Amino acid sequence: MDDPKPWLTLARVPGLHARILGEAADPRALVADSRRALGRLGLEAAAVEALRNPDAAALAGDEAWLAGPNRRLVTWGSPDYPPLLATIADPPLVLFVEGDAAAMSMPQLAIVGSRNPTAIGRDTAEQFAAHLAATGLAITSGLALGIDAAAHRGALAARGRTIAVLGCGIDVAYPRANAPLARDVAASGALVSDLPTGTPPLKHHFPRRNRIISGLSVGTLVVEAALQSGSLITARLAAEQGREVFAIPGSIHNPMARGCHRLIRQGAKLVETADDIFAELAALVESLRPGGGPADAEAADAQAVSAPVLDKDYEILLDALGFAPAGIDTLVARTGLATDSVASMLLILELDGRVAQQPGGLYCRRLAGKKE
Amino acid sequence: MDDPKPWLTLARVPGLHARILGEAADPRALVADSRRALGRLGLEAAAVEALRNPDAAALAGDEAWLAGPNRRLVTWGSPDYPPLLATIADPPLVLFVEGDAAAMSMPQLAIVGSRNPTAIGRDTAEQFAAHLAATGLAITSGLALGIDAAAHRGALAARGRTIAVLGCGIDVAYPRANAPLARDVAASGALVSDLPTGTPPLKHHFPRRNRIISGLSVGTLVVEAALQSGSLITARLAAEQGREVFAIPGSIHNPMARGCHRLIRQGAKLVETADDIFAELAALVESLRPGGGPADAEAADAQAVSAPVLDKDYEILLDALGFAPAGIDTLVARTGLATDSVASMLLILELDGRVAQQPGGLYCRRLAGKKE
Repeated sequence: MDDPKPWLTLARVPGLHARILGEAADPRALVADSRRALGRLGLEAAAVEALRNPDAAALAGDEAWLAGPNRRLVTWGSPDYPPLLATIADPPLVLFVEGDAAAMSMPQLAIVGSRNPTAIGRDTAEQFAAHLAATGLAITSGLALGIDAAAHRGALAARGRTIAVLGCGIDVAYPRANAPLARDVAASGALVSDLPTGTPPLKHHFPRRNRIISGLSVGTLVVEAALQSGSLITARLAAEQGREVFAIPGSIHNPMARGCHRLIRQGAKLVETADDIFAELAALVESLRPGGGPADAEAADAQAVSAPVLDKDYEILLDALGFAPAGIDTLVARTGLATDSVASMLLILELDGRVAQQPGGLYCRRLAGKKE
Repeated sequence: MDDPKPWLTLARVPGLHARILGEAADPRALVADSRRALGRLGLEAAAVEALRNPDAAALAGDEAWLAGPNRRLVTWGSPDYPPLLATIADPPLVLFVEGDAAAMSMPQLAIVGSRNPTAIGRDTAEQFAAHLAATGLAITSGLALGIDAAAHRGALAARGRTIAVLGCGIDVAYPRANAPLARDVAASGALVSDLPTGTPPLKHHFPRRNRIISGLSVGTLVVEAALQSGSLITARLAAEQGREVFAIPGSIHNPMARGCHRLIRQGAKLVETADDIFAELAALVESLRPGGGPADAEAADAQAVSAPVLDKDYEILLDALGFAPAGIDTLVARTGLATDSVASMLLILELDGRVAQQPGGLYCRRLAGKKE
């Protein structure tokens, strides 16, 4: 990519996100701009100051991190920028990514919840994540202790993709106990942060992080949450972003079910099994695709960049599929595509009604392009 | 009352309920009527036959039962006919009652559920019933094993009123294990059946019984229920009758929570505490009172009969209350009314906004007649 320095400078401007820049989103022009021009964007004096006098040592730290293996800076407007995240009210300008940045553009479900779940809650998060990851969905969470970690682990156990969004700089090991898990997540999917390197995990960063978790995802599942849990913020943000909220009920004697019950009263979908979520996904994925639902002008803009690449792989897969049932291994051998890509594309084609799943894990094309 | 024989004859006519009779509800005229006139009511040939040739021995059995102590036949249109039950689509023409028929006109909540609940479900039913009975609500259920019995027991333990509606003749001890409980229910509130004496507990009688349970009640709470549970029928009937449905969530690993979760998905109110239900009752009781909501023309008709009696006691109670806080015992001493009547009336006055409850179980009048 181009020189990342202008983007890294923007990443350190307090309160800045893509919508504030609007059409003027050429970072090079922006950092070279006059104070008065910057003032016209409505930026605070402190923000203008951060733009005019960037912290050179801090930027050098960002660049040093980016120089490491398997690391990327994904910037607003680039082909790798995740299309669903591009549709939220305050999309981040940059994403520091370790791992496979393309995983962020997969259809994904956020699974979040308490840092102190019950043993059953932890098992439930892991089982739902494993089941849904096996269908080709990526599982997104916040790498926190408890439900978040169980969700990442479940996806990893199913050899699925998982994405962890951090509330601190991507180089900050927090929580420390999850450092080995973070490495596994980066190897399978992606570790993501919109915060510059070295940013400590301060409390006010977490709602900001949560908007990315919900914004990347077609829906957010809350597994267990007390009434004061931060995962209720993620659920609220998901609802504000027009995404689906799912919650798992529990015994009225379990305080960790209270937050889920509140969400259900507020309209979240009560789910008992991973299949309950899968059943809702067709409509969700459909409504979030270009031309399919509200908030789509921008989704269409954002997706237009990456769509051609995707379409080519889909064509290859559909050509390889034919109308005789075939399993994923066969399709991988026929197409040369990666197993998880094939699984993910089959999910989308199934939700689109272009592919039908048969007993025994076999897939075949359908004549009509519409769902039943 | 008048000669019960014409009513007892009607009670044995298959498929008959008060709406079918319409305005022609003089049972004496009806049983003396010609075949052709009966045919005009749309009755089946078998029903006409039952009217023209009543089973004399069976009627004698009904009369023998009625001759026992503490027994009543409450008939359609009489002052004791429960006003909420009078508003349903198919009100029973007669109710065989053992105990206090007036209990059926109290504001009441149905609590129903599985015959095979978990130990926690059983405790929950008992605790909710005790808590709500203590506020002056009557607790209505079906005397079945499991949740039903626990609900009756909870109300009894709180020295509250409870009503059991049977799916068999009121003289048939079913289920046998609950015969002692049935005696306690009759002593505290009322045992009720619209089926003639000697009717066995056949499966198809239970939906018919369930419509009375839900029809007597401002709302129905389902505590635990499998997906095939008959209590889901009660909940459906409650919804069809325009009453509120409440359901208690549970662990997704508890099969006895499945029915409740289905109800919540269909729009039942998720409740975690008895207070959640109490909080909903103001609006419910209000909307079911004459002039307050839908389906009220008939509620008004039905209540007009018994309202004067009630109003007199309410006036006595309000006069005794004044604006200095007083406890229930004081009010009982001042009015000469029964303790449970005072508790029930205070509940209604509180829901109407005419009485406020103070700390320490004290009550006082409020200046405005409206709720906050």
